Amino acid sequence: MNDTRYELRPIGFVESSLVDLASAPAQGDEGAPDARIVVRPEFAPAMRSLEAGESIVVLTWLDRGDRTVLELHPRDDPTRPLHGVFSTRSPDRPNPIGLHEVEIVGIEDTRIQVRNLEAIDGTPVVDIKPVLGPVGAR
Amino acid sequence: MNDTRYELRPIGFVESSLVDLASAPAQGDEGAPDARIVVRPEFAPAMRSLEAGESIVVLTWLDRGDRTVLELHPRDDPTRPLHGVFSTRSPDRPNPIGLHEVEIVGIEDTRIQVRNLEAIDGTPVVDIKPVLGPVGAR
Repeated sequence: MNDTRYELRPIGFVESSLVDLASAPAQGDEGAPDARIVVRPEFAPAMRSLEAGESIVVLTWLDRGDRTVLELHPRDDPTRPLHGVFSTRSPDRPNPIGLHEVEIVGIEDTRIQVRNLEAIDGTPVVDIKPVLGPVGAR
Repeated sequence: MNDTRYELRPIGFVESSLVDLASAPAQGDEGAPDARIVVRPEFAPAMRSLEAGESIVVLTWLDRGDRTVLELHPRDDPTRPLHGVFSTRSPDRPNPIGLHEVEIVGIEDTRIQVRNLEAIDGTPVVDIKPVLGPVGAR
């Protein structure tokens, strides 16, 4: 168990005008620019049936996250009590996977235009999932 | 870019009475038993501030997923149109990460008891995140 590792392959990356962490909002609904997910051509068939107007969950690999951090003060605010990283959305965590719920604005070839994605330009994307609707509609 | 890989380390695993895929519901709110997330001792500090009653997102590694599948019929139902896997929650996908929104029922040492986790016994857990509340409460 202890030595098991799993290997993620990027299925694409983020294309955005956000280029540095300092200007990135902490969460997408706090004011991120529109952005695109550029899917690698070999994964294009997996995009079938994605449509404008749909909500999706984008999973990214936050490659600048510090994987050794287990506890921190949320939003680097020392007046807030120390939290375990599993109680925060910090990119600093053992497996720095980012979760972003966004809306598809449009699709052109292997580019998915989305609203409110707070990831910086070049961030690897590892998965895309539909947001689940009510049980009967799945 | 093409040869980049990222390595996930399990931070724990699922302990559940669900032991085979055939008896697992497709989603947790379709009737899964209570289950526990057993966190590996070295990651215990990251659990600080998790509490009973909170909703969390559990990320698992669906190690039985077929990573070569890019298109499929949802729920193995041939009468439903072919979907790209990014439009489904199928475990068959390039990076088989499972997303499970569950409620914490109780915590005992490094065991987190949760409600409605549809993963089978032994499933590796790779991350735990809080479900985000309204912007002002973060």
